[in-house]
Amino acid sequence: MTINRASNPAFADEIRASFAKQLIMDLIGGELTLIEPGVIEISLNYRADLTQQNGFVHAGIVTTIADSACGYAAYSLMPPESDVLAVEFKVNLLRPARGDRFVARAEVIKPGKTLTVVRADVVAIAGGEDRQLVATMLGTMMRLPRRSE
Amino acid sequence: MTINRASNPAFADEIRASFAKQLIMDLIGGELTLIEPGVIEISLNYRADLTQQNGFVHAGIVTTIADSACGYAAYSLMPPESDVLAVEFKVNLLRPARGDRFVARAEVIKPGKTLTVVRADVVAIAGGEDRQLVATMLGTMMRLPRRSE
Amino acid sequence: MTINRASNPAFADEIRASFAKQLIMDLIGGELTLIEPGVIEISLNYRADLTQQNGFVHAGIVTTIADSACGYAAYSLMPPESDVLAVEFKVNLLRPARGDRFVARAEVIKPGKTLTVVRADVVAIAGGEDRQLVATMLGTMMRLPRRSE
Amino acid sequence: MTINRASNPAFADEIRASFAKQLIMDLIGGELTLIEPGVIEISLNYRADLTQQNGFVHAGIVTTIADSACGYAAYSLMPPESDVLAVEFKVNLLRPARGDRFVARAEVIKPGKTLTVVRADVVAIAGGEDRQLVATMLGTMMRLPRRSE
Repeated sequence: MTINRASNPAFADEIRASFAKQLIMDLIGGELTLIEPGVIEISLNYRADLTQQNGFVHAGIVTTIADSACGYAAYSLMPPESDVLAVEFKVNLLRPARGDRFVARAEVIKPGKTLTVVRADVVAIAGGEDRQLVATMLGTMMRLPRRSE
Repeated sequence: MTINRASNPAFADEIRASFAKQLIMDLIGGELTLIEPGVIEISLNYRADLTQQNGFVHAGIVTTIADSACGYAAYSLMPPESDVLAVEFKVNLLRPARGDRFVARAEVIKPGKTLTVVRADVVAIAGGEDRQLVATMLGTMMRLPRRSE
Repeated sequence: MTINRASNPAFADEIRASFAKQLIMDLIGGELTLIEPGVIEISLNYRADLTQQNGFVHAGIVTTIADSACGYAAYSLMPPESDVLAVEFKVNLLRPARGDRFVARAEVIKPGKTLTVVRADVVAIAGGEDRQLVATMLGTMMRLPRRSE
Repeated sequence: MTINRASNPAFADEIRASFAKQLIMDLIGGELTLIEPGVIEISLNYRADLTQQNGFVHAGIVTTIADSACGYAAYSLMPPESDVLAVEFKVNLLRPARGDRFVARAEVIKPGKTLTVVRADVVAIAGGEDRQLVATMLGTMMRLPRRSE
């Protein structure tokens, strides 16, 4: 609907640096695979140690990559010296998270000075080709002035 | 509001067996700490490798234990030969997930033949004493006939 | 992503008949303005008696047209002899509902035998031209066998 | 969990005055029936012109009273010179909204300087006695400095 413009010229570097500090992404194998103004993708390979009782990737792990993608999508449109946190999200789980690789793609629906609303779709890729939408998230992200360290 | 009665006498053993198959719980250190009809608790110790960029436990990991607690709370009231899956959940993140230990306590609000609505609160415990509500989940769980193996 | 096909050839007539029984739509002035397989629009003109304390249309009225649009979008893809009910929905309110006319457009994201997930966007139209997204809904609709009368 | 204290001594009068400006409440018959710090009830009698196709009160009308109750519950804990708006809410519809009277009771879960998280339960009362929980809302309300008029 709108073309997003980043007001922080360093947004991509800052997102990469922040993502590197998300130690949970090392644990589960999350990778930052797309950074554009208002659009972020985080991807994950299937691993048996990420699964629930039926062998599908746990909904909480699907949520982990979707939530971080939403946070960084919001961040990409914020002014310099911002910090971002998730206020809330809702996830609909559409199919079992079965596949070789999972990509969470977040897109800002409505940027705002304080609150930004973001949607993320998570697709499962199997056999390099077949893509299935397994979950969709609708969430609210909040801008805070950055904490000085 | 209502006293919950389990119609499956083996529910507690089945939940323990299912939880043992959730390999994600081994990875993140989730423990099943309470099993009652309609009420489940899953707990987790703080670990640096579960954190986001500010050193708090990632919202997706908080969601992981809350979602499993909701699923098993729903399961505990289902008839034998059931399987449970999460349809959707919404999480409000009330405070940063800072603390030594996190307990997700799920309680069934409305059991149903097909759909069960469950609420979970996640508290952070610090210094063995202080308890802070860090997140609350409201979700819908679905009963499926068990897949034969 | 997918092309929706209606399996109930009478879906459009049945939706019109059902909508005519939603007496709330008479009260608030809701009109059924688009019926396609998997896509429904319900529209509403601004009226002072629909407003909250600041003179904007109340979020609950925005929700009313979005929810009915989601329900009928789900219904349009269900087999004959179905009834539909809303299981849950989440609404993000993006801007004040200010304008001359409001259009809730619902699209099925994932049809299912029992549960269908639907998204609705509500736009406000002012001066015949300007269109602003004022709310977005993500909801779950359930199929029931029709009650005989 | 916590005892709520109002920091605005005029909160009850201001809520009554604001509610009187919600013209939608005149249209649907909503009444403000409880005002306490952090807790608000809005009630509604059954009327045929509030119903959906099966003769139950429409989920959007249930949402209307729950949303306003949540907004005023948040407002009751805000400092003077505040305005409140709903950021988002999620509603689980637990049973058909069938009954003589409906009471939406909202309680603040987590007050905040900018955002307040509120839960509302809506009960249906039939025959003066029987009370059934028909819906539950979990929502986020935002404080804005009051607009001068």
